[in-house]
Amino acid sequence: MAKIAIMGFGTVGSGVLEVLRRNAAAIQRRAGEPVEVKYILDIRDFSAHPDAKLFVKDLDVILADPEVKAVVETIGGTKPAYDFVKRCLSSGRSVATSNKELVATHGAELLALAKENGVAFLFEASVGGGTPIITPMHQCLAANMIAGIEGIVNGTTNFMLTKMARENMDFDQALKIAQSLGYAETIDPSADVDGIDACRKIAILASLAFGKHVYPQNIPTTGIRAVTPADITAAASMGCAVKLVVWAKQLEGGRLAAGVEPMLVPNENQLAGVEDVFNAVLLKGDMLGDVVFYGKGAGKLPTASAVVADVIDALKHGASVHDSLFWQPAAPADAPLTDPSPATYYVRVQGLQPETLRQLPGCTDTGLTDAGAYCVLTGLVPSQLEQAKAAVAGLGGQVCITLKLLEE
Amino acid sequence: MAKIAIMGFGTVGSGVLEVLRRNAAAIQRRAGEPVEVKYILDIRDFSAHPDAKLFVKDLDVILADPEVKAVVETIGGTKPAYDFVKRCLSSGRSVATSNKELVATHGAELLALAKENGVAFLFEASVGGGTPIITPMHQCLAANMIAGIEGIVNGTTNFMLTKMARENMDFDQALKIAQSLGYAETIDPSADVDGIDACRKIAILASLAFGKHVYPQNIPTTGIRAVTPADITAAASMGCAVKLVVWAKQLEGGRLAAGVEPMLVPNENQLAGVEDVFNAVLLKGDMLGDVVFYGKGAGKLPTASAVVADVIDALKHGASVHDSLFWQPAAPADAPLTDPSPATYYVRVQGLQPETLRQLPGCTDTGLTDAGAYCVLTGLVPSQLEQAKAAVAGLGGQVCITLKLLEE
Repeated sequence: MAKIAIMGFGTVGSGVLEVLRRNAAAIQRRAGEPVEVKYILDIRDFSAHPDAKLFVKDLDVILADPEVKAVVETIGGTKPAYDFVKRCLSSGRSVATSNKELVATHGAELLALAKENGVAFLFEASVGGGTPIITPMHQCLAANMIAGIEGIVNGTTNFMLTKMARENMDFDQALKIAQSLGYAETIDPSADVDGIDACRKIAILASLAFGKHVYPQNIPTTGIRAVTPADITAAASMGCAVKLVVWAKQLEGGRLAAGVEPMLVPNENQLAGVEDVFNAVLLKGDMLGDVVFYGKGAGKLPTASAVVADVIDALKHGASVHDSLFWQPAAPADAPLTDPSPATYYVRVQGLQPETLRQLPGCTDTGLTDAGAYCVLTGLVPSQLEQAKAAVAGLGGQVCITLKLLEE
Repeated sequence: MAKIAIMGFGTVGSGVLEVLRRNAAAIQRRAGEPVEVKYILDIRDFSAHPDAKLFVKDLDVILADPEVKAVVETIGGTKPAYDFVKRCLSSGRSVATSNKELVATHGAELLALAKENGVAFLFEASVGGGTPIITPMHQCLAANMIAGIEGIVNGTTNFMLTKMARENMDFDQALKIAQSLGYAETIDPSADVDGIDACRKIAILASLAFGKHVYPQNIPTTGIRAVTPADITAAASMGCAVKLVVWAKQLEGGRLAAGVEPMLVPNENQLAGVEDVFNAVLLKGDMLGDVVFYGKGAGKLPTASAVVADVIDALKHGASVHDSLFWQPAAPADAPLTDPSPATYYVRVQGLQPETLRQLPGCTDTGLTDAGAYCVLTGLVPSQLEQAKAAVAGLGGQVCITLKLLEE
């Protein structure tokens, strides 16, 4: 019998308890022994809960019990999760977490601390909401160098963009529906719609792929607030979908570039067909070529089932398995991780006609939408794009949105 | 320094050597030590090969060398691979193989033999040609019961069906192109086009998902020889693609059903968009919902990179990691693993008009193609489908092809 503790009894934490109980037999077979929750740490009052006797308010109770072999962290955020996880790891307990902010901010340190203490720090559930991505990435692609990552990793914004595309709905309407379904926060939806959540996830994937800590604050991040149904229609006429894409790649010379931004995704790309709350991550292995992992990006039981898989893994193998789940500490970069390569951009403008936009450098196409004229500018490096935007202003126009084309 | 041996220096075997050398630094970091090929076993003459000194013709040379910790099996087929793998495992060497016939035929026995000897028997490369499927399935989905599997696992037939759809090409033309590109065997392409290869792969996936050995000979298997461009066009008019689908599911009461057959795949299904030589496997987890793993289904380096990932895994952990990569031995079933559930079928007929087909039981649609009339029959159990086919014959018609609709 393996005893574990759950820290944080919110959606995912309660899902962990549920998954452990519902699939107890299968989990026992795979873990080699039954897995039982001995403690649940939560500062809220659960005295009326059927499992009231499991609840504690003090982490020391858990740490003082030698029976507890692994701890689940589903508190979220970094306070007090960061401190609690450090104490668990230092005390010789493996930790499985779904907390992307924690991993994106302190991953390298926590991985090193786990190694030092001969335990595991696992976080499959932090990206993809249960869809296996982290494990295939470091384990199955162990014989590959990863050249690049592209993904759709925020289910809420993907749901909203799908609604906007299918029902010609604007951002505000789509947000209201996402909020009414519980996909977006009602008070402050910015973590989703401004790309903050997606940014943390690509920071984690990039850290793992390229072997050293990549910080969210170094990743240029734009959300979907400026996207209109007009842009989605124009994109469709060019054979593209509009998706909030996270990407990371290694440039010549080893420098990294990464970003979070709404992009034009050509229909041939596997990511274009990812709809609703689904997530997908495309990895480019140097030996394997492109692989895609696709699944539901959120949800109580999917996410919890990934945490439980990590718990089983930790109980069976502790630190020994996870030499490849590791990256080096690094200081934040001095500058944003922008990509200096030439790219193609869709630029929608108000106050100018398509004919006027034709004079912009690299212009290969123009058109008119309900929300202004647009042009397609090809082969521009970032400074040239800025010049083009300045030219638009000089002509008396106003740039409403710029969407980069996701290229192979 | 970890020493390994490669048995069989064909496409995949030589790819293993290449991957180990090209990504030596990354592999060393992940394996914790350099990985070096000490022997290559092949009965052919490689005396002019730059690595001629590595070649041996006698397995005993390898088994007698205590430095060899793991062996790669890339001979293919079961003779002599089965015997060789048993001898390697019995001697305490972990084995990584890409050999689907071997795993589909003898998997349970070889997994048990590996366990008995405290070593690992790994075969990620046997399905998906390098795309991670086996490992995510048993490890990341450890907290899930798998309710069903659907996949496209033969790149050659998927390439042919894609050609047929895009270029209105018939089977023979598509086969010639596949042969000229080296995707299909020139002398006898039946392993691909008759579904034999796909059948072995679903046997492996079903064995792992449901925990006991599923034999290829129990899985009803139909290839793509009867598919015409007319069927693909008719399917498109119904919002479907025609794909060679492998599937397996657990029926009420625990009985398994599995099959390999060309099917109508609705465009909403992730498998419909899988084109060319790509493969995809969709797993239905009870907690996780649907997840899809997608990648190139074949190729020297992709497949070899999966073998190398298994070698790294075996060197690091031996048997200890792989309690969940296991299934029980079982005798072959007495009867084919057919699915008794009602289903929807597309039936193309020669010698009858669409109007005549309307009288068939469950008929919900009819139409005319270049190659005869068709009907859609809905809600038929297998015996009712047989009755419908008999009715067609009774009316003087001839059934050319029957395609089942892949339903959620």
